[in-house]
Amino acid sequence: MPRVSATKRSILDAAVELASLNGITGTTMEDVAVRAGVAKGSVYYNFSSKDKLFEQLLLDGVGTLAETLREARGTKTGAPALRSMVDAILELVSNNQPMAKLIAAEIFRTDRSWQSPLQLVRREALAEFVAVIRHAHPDRPDAELMAGTVFGAVLVGGIEWLVFSPDRSLQEVSDSVMFMLSGQLAD
Amino acid sequence: MPRVSATKRSILDAAVELASLNGITGTTMEDVAVRAGVAKGSVYYNFSSKDKLFEQLLLDGVGTLAETLREARGTKTGAPALRSMVDAILELVSNNQPMAKLIAAEIFRTDRSWQSPLQLVRREALAEFVAVIRHAHPDRPDAELMAGTVFGAVLVGGIEWLVFSPDRSLQEVSDSVMFMLSGQLAD
Repeated sequence: MPRVSATKRSILDAAVELASLNGITGTTMEDVAVRAGVAKGSVYYNFSSKDKLFEQLLLDGVGTLAETLREARGTKTGAPALRSMVDAILELVSNNQPMAKLIAAEIFRTDRSWQSPLQLVRREALAEFVAVIRHAHPDRPDAELMAGTVFGAVLVGGIEWLVFSPDRSLQEVSDSVMFMLSGQLAD
Repeated sequence: MPRVSATKRSILDAAVELASLNGITGTTMEDVAVRAGVAKGSVYYNFSSKDKLFEQLLLDGVGTLAETLREARGTKTGAPALRSMVDAILELVSNNQPMAKLIAAEIFRTDRSWQSPLQLVRREALAEFVAVIRHAHPDRPDAELMAGTVFGAVLVGGIEWLVFSPDRSLQEVSDSVMFMLSGQLAD
């Protein structure tokens, strides 16, 4: 996440919490100011509009995801690369559940002003999965689509974990995801 | 989907379209009336509140999903059962993209008045995947979590398909999902 001032940080944190509860449409700049404990003018001083605020929020969130996946993959390939990236996503989701829910709700919307920058960063995050799939299957034309399905599985699995079985460890959830990918799910 | 009157149907259709564009919070009963071409009083006559309207909408959507998965599985087990259920979800998503997006955004929220009934029906839908996994692995304690990851993969894959590669056929997308589950993704 890029370095931002303490005020900016508290505004962004307030915004993601409110949006994960009430949706972006249901969150006003006034709500954000109250939750962040700052004046409404300060919110507008830091972000010129609500759209700009949520654009930065989502770009930060998905940008952090892309950076984390890049580090998690490193120079690994094959199943170890997948495992490392699955662990990294689960850790992110577990550390920032409101952001994970917001990303799950926003990443496929096509009607937002921040759609194009978000899609660019999203593509960057999926690129790490695409690279691992292409390394194994250079000729498959559907590497991006499959990268999306793996990402969806981990994101939904991670939210499911925190909402319905928070007693499981990250390692157990990661094992479940890897088993799902192992070809043994139904035999 | 249960049989409902033509007016009720046009209200439900208007509501799902608006909510997939503006979110549920961003959709008013007035907007729904205008879009459905009915009087606002008629919306309230059919659904006592906005919460009741969206509760019925989501229960219908997830209920249809559960029924479709039950039929798709039939008496099949193993990979053929998975394939048949994957195809069925992709067909549903493709026939009702706004509902698919709404379900993707709502199914993990924990703050809605319709949370408990929706979770019941959600469990019913996932139960079909759980049954296939348990048939193959009676002792795994994580069948529900894995069912959630498979469902997430197909839902995200389906939305990804329609938004980013609508030129692909359902069969191609289903092949991609089955390949993702085959254990060969990264080798």
